[in-house]
Amino acid sequence: MIALAAFAGCCAWHLAARRRRGTHQIPHLARKWRAEVRVAAHAARACGRAIIRAGHNHTSWATAPSWKGAAKIDPCTATDEENEALVRRAIASAFPHHAIIGEESSAAMGEIPALGLEDTWIVDPIDGTQNFVHGMPLSVVSLGLCVNRIPTVGVVYNPHSDELFVGVRGEGAWCNGERITCKAGAKRLDEALVIIDPAYERSPLGVRQLAAQYLGLLGANTRAIRAIGTSVYAIALVACGRASGFVIGVNDGDSPKPWDWCAAAVIAREAGAVLRMVDNRRTPPGDSRAPAGEGDSFDLFSRSGVCAATPELADALQQIALEAIAVPVDELDHF
Amino acid sequence: MIALAAFAGCCAWHLAARRRRGTHQIPHLARKWRAEVRVAAHAARACGRAIIRAGHNHTSWATAPSWKGAAKIDPCTATDEENEALVRRAIASAFPHHAIIGEESSAAMGEIPALGLEDTWIVDPIDGTQNFVHGMPLSVVSLGLCVNRIPTVGVVYNPHSDELFVGVRGEGAWCNGERITCKAGAKRLDEALVIIDPAYERSPLGVRQLAAQYLGLLGANTRAIRAIGTSVYAIALVACGRASGFVIGVNDGDSPKPWDWCAAAVIAREAGAVLRMVDNRRTPPGDSRAPAGEGDSFDLFSRSGVCAATPELADALQQIALEAIAVPVDELDHF
Repeated sequence: MIALAAFAGCCAWHLAARRRRGTHQIPHLARKWRAEVRVAAHAARACGRAIIRAGHNHTSWATAPSWKGAAKIDPCTATDEENEALVRRAIASAFPHHAIIGEESSAAMGEIPALGLEDTWIVDPIDGTQNFVHGMPLSVVSLGLCVNRIPTVGVVYNPHSDELFVGVRGEGAWCNGERITCKAGAKRLDEALVIIDPAYERSPLGVRQLAAQYLGLLGANTRAIRAIGTSVYAIALVACGRASGFVIGVNDGDSPKPWDWCAAAVIAREAGAVLRMVDNRRTPPGDSRAPAGEGDSFDLFSRSGVCAATPELADALQQIALEAIAVPVDELDHF
Repeated sequence: MIALAAFAGCCAWHLAARRRRGTHQIPHLARKWRAEVRVAAHAARACGRAIIRAGHNHTSWATAPSWKGAAKIDPCTATDEENEALVRRAIASAFPHHAIIGEESSAAMGEIPALGLEDTWIVDPIDGTQNFVHGMPLSVVSLGLCVNRIPTVGVVYNPHSDELFVGVRGEGAWCNGERITCKAGAKRLDEALVIIDPAYERSPLGVRQLAAQYLGLLGANTRAIRAIGTSVYAIALVACGRASGFVIGVNDGDSPKPWDWCAAAVIAREAGAVLRMVDNRRTPPGDSRAPAGEGDSFDLFSRSGVCAATPELADALQQIALEAIAVPVDELDHF
């Protein structure tokens, strides 16, 4: 009897520990979108396990990845491709009529397919591939569903911290089953932890624009500046109040793509964050519009973006980004 | 009997899981320094639990911290102070004759005490306090022991990932009980993941120096640039091969202190990383010298530093930092 009680206690402890780690924590949703969230969460976790496994085995990042872009520093690994195939199989099996736009297949095609009116998943099987290649534990899986071209379901999974972020348009945002809201505290830059991302912009003009943005943030006494190498997780951190703001896209090589926004945009908007374009630059194809959160329009094909806890902070980050974009070419040699 | 077997199995699973998570993984050491490593690891984990607990309770970072420095953006929380007190008690109890230099007590005194010849622990109870204040899961505990002014034992604990880094001079470096070495791969910046840290430098000259460094790295086609807000963990990441290099200290506000180097320096050196000063600037008191790793001297009181996987990469990072430090004052308005 004692052993039985101890066994029961041990099982309860084990279940409680799994719950603490969030392994089973999908938010309780009404019928609508429940199946989509479950399928996406399941696929995202499977991708996450592959990321961890490849890291442990030193397989994916020990072998030379292939490279995207002119600077030859943007990698694509076997795990990226395998994860996208896994996601495609999971979605095709559960929702055979849904379309899919993926980072790796788009890179292979050399262009991003246009976003149609049919239900379309926009997925990044590893956001933060460069971190993954180096073995740095900062990469996430991002799966978003557009309905009528509007981001409607977002699932982001960080396998390193076992955090599952879920957002459903009009329903809310969650991390491991608990509601999240962005902390409305930081209105000024000297209160803010701001995440930037130089990504793969390395053109002579682009690097000066990036440096001008960095200088602008430092000169405005921004409390903390971080660069973590995954824009999706950066937006998720703003959504759950652990970062104040995120800004990206002063030129081409650091411009985000629809898979950087889709899932994260739903989560951020539902958590109360401000999401806006820095300016009107867009990736050529498609004409999707993510829903306006606070009066302004936001486009999934935007090549720049600000996500912030408050409109005041979004203003400040947008202003500094606009000034950086406008760095005069004839002053470039004077740094 | 079945219940008993199940109970035993469950316990074995639980123990195996703890082992996987590294909870008990202290490296096997000869008699020398074994006690010091155990006491430091135990204290570091206790501090780590306090960091996680405060994060969960939103206590420490929900209340306004006190501020250090002129820019009023460098925080000190109750958890910093409680953790330093915890470390002091643990060390005083186990090694009553050892001296202690701590970040928080030094800040309270307004100066860093000189490092004498007696065995001295140099400790940072939370490295990455700004992250901690915002709830961003990137902060570590750092406990280093100097013997004859030479960093000899280093213990760094990341409570968010449950990683315990240990370095013992002449013995080796470990993460969760497994030997670590820095990956000798990256010799060039276009192969490298480089971590920078603007810390709290916000003077008109300093922010331009920081921007010049950022521009220099981008212009040299550095593969990835990160800023994670904890220099100790950055050095640990270089030591275990997950980052290629780390560079810090172009002015005063971003200059590291002895507690940023002490534990991390032992770990990095023993893992085969190159550690050197960018130039000869030093914090006034003390005249300790960390052991020369590869022919050059390194000083715990250095106000700048480079830690890199290879001498070639260290050269490149040092060169860009030196050029940034030398930004001419009369060109400051031309950016």
